[in-house]
Amino acid sequence: MVAPESGGRRGTRLDLTQTLVISIDAMGGDHGPTVVIPACAKALEGLPHVNLLLHGDEARLAPEVARHNGLAGRVEVRHTGRVISMEEKPAQAMRRGKGTSMWNAIEAVREGQASAAVSAGNTGALMAISRLILRMTGDLDRPALVASIPHSKGLTTFLDVGANVDCDAARLVEFAVMGAAYHRAAFGVDKPTVGLLNVGSEEMKGHEEVREANRILREGKIDVDYRGFVEGDDITAGTVDVVVTDGFTGNVALKSMEGAARFMYAELRAALTTGALTTLGAMLARSSLLRFRDKMSPPPAAPLLGLNGLVLKCHGGADERDFAKALTQAATLAQSGFAAEIERNMRRLPAALETTGAASADGAA
Amino acid sequence: MVAPESGGRRGTRLDLTQTLVISIDAMGGDHGPTVVIPACAKALEGLPHVNLLLHGDEARLAPEVARHNGLAGRVEVRHTGRVISMEEKPAQAMRRGKGTSMWNAIEAVREGQASAAVSAGNTGALMAISRLILRMTGDLDRPALVASIPHSKGLTTFLDVGANVDCDAARLVEFAVMGAAYHRAAFGVDKPTVGLLNVGSEEMKGHEEVREANRILREGKIDVDYRGFVEGDDITAGTVDVVVTDGFTGNVALKSMEGAARFMYAELRAALTTGALTTLGAMLARSSLLRFRDKMSPPPAAPLLGLNGLVLKCHGGADERDFAKALTQAATLAQSGFAAEIERNMRRLPAALETTGAASADGAA
Repeated sequence: MVAPESGGRRGTRLDLTQTLVISIDAMGGDHGPTVVIPACAKALEGLPHVNLLLHGDEARLAPEVARHNGLAGRVEVRHTGRVISMEEKPAQAMRRGKGTSMWNAIEAVREGQASAAVSAGNTGALMAISRLILRMTGDLDRPALVASIPHSKGLTTFLDVGANVDCDAARLVEFAVMGAAYHRAAFGVDKPTVGLLNVGSEEMKGHEEVREANRILREGKIDVDYRGFVEGDDITAGTVDVVVTDGFTGNVALKSMEGAARFMYAELRAALTTGALTTLGAMLARSSLLRFRDKMSPPPAAPLLGLNGLVLKCHGGADERDFAKALTQAATLAQSGFAAEIERNMRRLPAALETTGAASADGAA
Repeated sequence: MVAPESGGRRGTRLDLTQTLVISIDAMGGDHGPTVVIPACAKALEGLPHVNLLLHGDEARLAPEVARHNGLAGRVEVRHTGRVISMEEKPAQAMRRGKGTSMWNAIEAVREGQASAAVSAGNTGALMAISRLILRMTGDLDRPALVASIPHSKGLTTFLDVGANVDCDAARLVEFAVMGAAYHRAAFGVDKPTVGLLNVGSEEMKGHEEVREANRILREGKIDVDYRGFVEGDDITAGTVDVVVTDGFTGNVALKSMEGAARFMYAELRAALTTGALTTLGAMLARSSLLRFRDKMSPPPAAPLLGLNGLVLKCHGGADERDFAKALTQAATLAQSGFAAEIERNMRRLPAALETTGAASADGAA
């Protein structure tokens, strides 16, 4: 076992000051290094300014790295024999996570050695360890998780789809700020529009928390382009760029949409493989159906928002192409002014909340 | 204007004691009598034991009725010149709704002249007027709305997708009772399984209300086959027969799924109409795609649950086939022991809640 603080560096040692460095939990995800390392090689082809720190078992990583010429001199393997399993509970992961590939990947961000960390490992553990190592910027208990949902002309940024189950109005306003900053950084939209998820568009609809958050955002003291309440079907209609909700509703809505999409695929496949003429038809339409499926696939990774540092969670089943995309996403976000913008707007928040508290009775238009 | 109490009967007068009578808001929906009357004729072909009360403008209804031989002697037109528009607010509808076709349709249920009322009109107005005329059975503020979501082997009953935005544990337990009774009556499932919607399946997940409802349902004092927490994607997976949640989450999840399905249809159509080979393929696969779309279409109507009486809301855009199906649904539910079963279980509820309140600290397994 290697002492976690030292990181167990061997082989190539990178000059961490000259390039953008991304720190990778190379053991995470369903497939581990066999997917992560080829994905790194693929991603670096398009990211000439990026180098990588790879955290994990050197005996498994080194041979994989050696197989890809493009990685020579651009990655540093930092050995650790310890990993966090996909089944580990967050509390366990916090107690026993020190020195694992996930822990070390995040610690490199805190120590300023990398601009972002990427893991396809256990989500609960990643959130817990990130919060422990990097701490939160605002008053949030836990990082917010953002999802990108396809609509006909792009992607809707949807948050929180994670673990912030009970959200007061201030938390929803924080999500609006973070979601807008993320959308701008990730998709290059100058002034993203923001909507608050509700059960109707009238001002008096919904529970107290969303109506209060609506009042605060309407007042215009927070620097987001707020457009009022939106409903569930606006997420895939692209009505606004960013849809904000609490972590309970967001998680349920996201999984409901994923379930509906999965069910429709399965039924469609079944419908298109019954009868010879139908099957012939489906074969002829195949390339269009594949493009269709491609368009339906959201980005494979998402940042944990609200941390002092950039951590991206890539989905656990990621293949080579997905994980390569995740690295490109990390590079894009790391280069943007994203984190600084969130911090700037977060600092304005307490003042905005105070004024509104006094003014809330007259129901801002 | 006709006095609403008298109902303004003309023409055929039915013997209301010999048959199952359904009371219809014949002016409701986007298309009104031009869809409703042909739908009645269509439905009655398959419902020899059912007669109808038609509430609305006699000058418009009578000629339509005369056009269908099958309606002779089986419908009674009750004239009123007043209607509730699709735009009317619930509060307005309650104040000014007396004597409208919707109001009179529901009043016939309270007066015991009909076993069920069906309307394709304004949902908010229908809920408000139904509550005012029929009153609620339990402690619910408003009727719960149930949706039927397709999965590969049938339909999931999902509630509340309506207006009960703030739900404590007792309300969620009421939904479980009503949902199970509805599922049994509507789909003939002897012992429907019930799940509580949450953000994970572990006992400690979610907010206080779902955890408390979980404890009550686990204790087994309420007569439902409870299977624990389920997640958003379980709705379309058919994991349980009935999925229970509060009206805020339910409304958002339902609209999110509808939006996702609508978006996928649009994209699929676009994908299948680009390029000659693809279009040929799509034509060959057409009948399968139509069957697929049919399977994806949930029942057109749903009961408002928790009222002292049966009221079904049919979707506003219903065509002839949809509204005919809605009448068949109403007949099926009216003949079942549905309402009585809900009442029986509701009477057990206060006792079950009391015991659980005392025992809740030890966290029932």
